[in-house]
Amino acid sequence: MDQQECIFCSIVAGSGPAHVVYEDENVVAFLDIRPIKRGHTLVIPRTHAQDLSELPQQLGAQVFSAAQIIARAVRDERIGAEGANIVINDGEAAFQTVPHTHIHVIPRRHGDKMRLAGGLLTRRASALPETAALLRAAINEAAGTQD
Amino acid sequence: MDQQECIFCSIVAGSGPAHVVYEDENVVAFLDIRPIKRGHTLVIPRTHAQDLSELPQQLGAQVFSAAQIIARAVRDERIGAEGANIVINDGEAAFQTVPHTHIHVIPRRHGDKMRLAGGLLTRRASALPETAALLRAAINEAAGTQD
Repeated sequence: MDQQECIFCSIVAGSGPAHVVYEDENVVAFLDIRPIKRGHTLVIPRTHAQDLSELPQQLGAQVFSAAQIIARAVRDERIGAEGANIVINDGEAAFQTVPHTHIHVIPRRHGDKMRLAGGLLTRRASALPETAALLRAAINEAAGTQD
Repeated sequence: MDQQECIFCSIVAGSGPAHVVYEDENVVAFLDIRPIKRGHTLVIPRTHAQDLSELPQQLGAQVFSAAQIIARAVRDERIGAEGANIVINDGEAAFQTVPHTHIHVIPRRHGDKMRLAGGLLTRRASALPETAALLRAAINEAAGTQD
């Protein structure tokens, strides 16, 4: 895929809309627009890499570290998760849909029943701007910085 | 949990049985004894950490790097995957069952139909020693051809 046409590269470039919750020199994290759960976040490298076999190992470690920060932050009372699923669908055979490698961080609560319909997880829209603000605050507070 | 009673710590210590496919100074990877797919591997830190909030960030990056190596290796013709799901169930609320944090690497092929029964993925036993030998060979060969 031409990187010019990559929807995640456009988010990195600032030309695509996204509710960004975390960013640093190498990584951007933003809310999934079709969240499985409230606070469902995608973490991506700024540099285009289609999948894990294209992703330099050091950059992979940086993307994972950001995912770990977010997995901790969703346990903050503002989001109220009690755990999280961290998921990479690596390759079309593994249900990867956007060809720019990304880590899903999916907040979970006890008994929240991941809903299945027709073999696909149901996804409901929610108040993305408000959720993004809460999650940014939780991440920044954990990092000791101000939002 | 007392680390003395942790089944994954016993694998690290060498007192628990496992089909190890990769290890280095910080990480051990071995086949899941109830594989969702052939070659289903668990990657763990040698040091006990219950979940991602207990796992030091640098060690998390090292565990992820090992998972990335394995995700690449399962695409070798000896295992024959076309992709992989990388999954961490972080916390009981997210279906974590063994309280020593671990990354699942689940090899996938196009159309392999992740089977669901009663909401749980079905898991079938397979030839673990043979699979481990093939995967170790793929990992070692990839390591030898890198740089």
